[in-house]
Amino acid sequence: MIKTRPYVLVTNDDGIAAPGIHALVQELKKDADVVVVAPDSEKSAVGHAITLSDPIRVSYFNKSGQWEGYAVSGTPSDCVKIAVGALLDRRPDMVISGINLGSNAGINMIYSGTVSAATEGTILGIPSIAVSLTTYTNPIFESAASFAVKMMGIVLSKGLPDRTLLNINVPNLPENEIAGVRITRQGMANFAETFVKRVDPRNRVYYWMDGKKEEISDDDDVDDEAIKHGYISITPVKYDLTNYKFIDTLSNWLPEILG
Amino acid sequence: MIKTRPYVLVTNDDGIAAPGIHALVQELKKDADVVVVAPDSEKSAVGHAITLSDPIRVSYFNKSGQWEGYAVSGTPSDCVKIAVGALLDRRPDMVISGINLGSNAGINMIYSGTVSAATEGTILGIPSIAVSLTTYTNPIFESAASFAVKMMGIVLSKGLPDRTLLNINVPNLPENEIAGVRITRQGMANFAETFVKRVDPRNRVYYWMDGKKEEISDDDDVDDEAIKHGYISITPVKYDLTNYKFIDTLSNWLPEILG
Repeated sequence: MIKTRPYVLVTNDDGIAAPGIHALVQELKKDADVVVVAPDSEKSAVGHAITLSDPIRVSYFNKSGQWEGYAVSGTPSDCVKIAVGALLDRRPDMVISGINLGSNAGINMIYSGTVSAATEGTILGIPSIAVSLTTYTNPIFESAASFAVKMMGIVLSKGLPDRTLLNINVPNLPENEIAGVRITRQGMANFAETFVKRVDPRNRVYYWMDGKKEEISDDDDVDDEAIKHGYISITPVKYDLTNYKFIDTLSNWLPEILG
Repeated sequence: MIKTRPYVLVTNDDGIAAPGIHALVQELKKDADVVVVAPDSEKSAVGHAITLSDPIRVSYFNKSGQWEGYAVSGTPSDCVKIAVGALLDRRPDMVISGINLGSNAGINMIYSGTVSAATEGTILGIPSIAVSLTTYTNPIFESAASFAVKMMGIVLSKGLPDRTLLNINVPNLPENEIAGVRITRQGMANFAETFVKRVDPRNRVYYWMDGKKEEISDDDDVDDEAIKHGYISITPVKYDLTNYKFIDTLSNWLPEILG
């Protein structure tokens, strides 16, 4: 079998200068032709935002001669859209978003710029995965990077269903301490938000948002639970938001709605 | 039966000064105690963003003596979080987000600040609906406003399932020309994005993102199709993003993933 090198678009939400994207690209470029199009600064918790009312700036970016790409003054979704729509001369075979610093499991998934970039790739018909490392401190990127490359090969050979991407969360452990891999569903533990109220030097009130995810004991097939026990979590994510199960009940409300 | 007035939190993504939120509040306050906590400026297409790395400012807002509330220097999701977490002295009975100028049907739903605010209400355990008017020009808010009030009553009496909100899109027609109401699923017509490349006075390149939704002929039970035919569309939306159907197949990949 002739081995070809896939063309892979890499992006993230921590910004093009973040260590996670560098670790991913260094590993990836052994097996793939890589182009990086990523935000020019940190864009965490931007959700699936796109930039419609501001101009988008693009600058050439060179990582000390090790890899190159474009830094974009926009969100992760903007990066994927503008890469495919304007910057690249051919469609990438795959989009990989990451490696994010911090978990994108559970409820985090819906605020995640990392996941939204992979969603955007999926919308454009390109197989896409999001990869996050579940720590903010002392990151060990190696396991996550090599796992991302492995998953790239599997996804490219097997394909993904319509409108579906893989959201991968890797525990912050050396490769030989990772317990295994679990196929999971999105956990539903909520954040308990706190708002810290302060007064600025001009006597104006402002707030900082802070939050902590609830500690709940959940089933083994939940993403947060897999990570807690040292497993890599792979959640298949689809962007059809319809609650199909509720459609029939809601249809029974129609007489009242129309009445 | 004693009729009580529910306590309703109103927000949007067009900003607290937008005409759509005013039309909604004017109609709503006949039947409910209303508090408005909305962005201090337009926040369209911000997706499910939250503000973690900037301070959030809150200002008292008075709409010409007609209603009052708070203007927030954040996203629609921030507004709901900070309202419930810091600004209000009791939990609202319901969150209504809107009336948005422009459709939030189909793929728009995933970029929508309007829908994300209702999602945030749902996450906090409060029954929530999002209401959009499917036009950008010559808006007729009356039908959408009175329909929102009607749906408030129905939702408060019947409740909504876990993790589920209603995404309501109203065609821009006078009440007597609306064809009816359809319970729908999220359409999947894509955007065809275009990037307009320009050069600024300092000779730097920048881009504007523009896009047009594909015109596809779809089933009657799709949101975009309902609107096209003059119906109000109600889509039940849930925020569990797991593709449950794909979990078994993905589990069959495990030998290869682990190998």
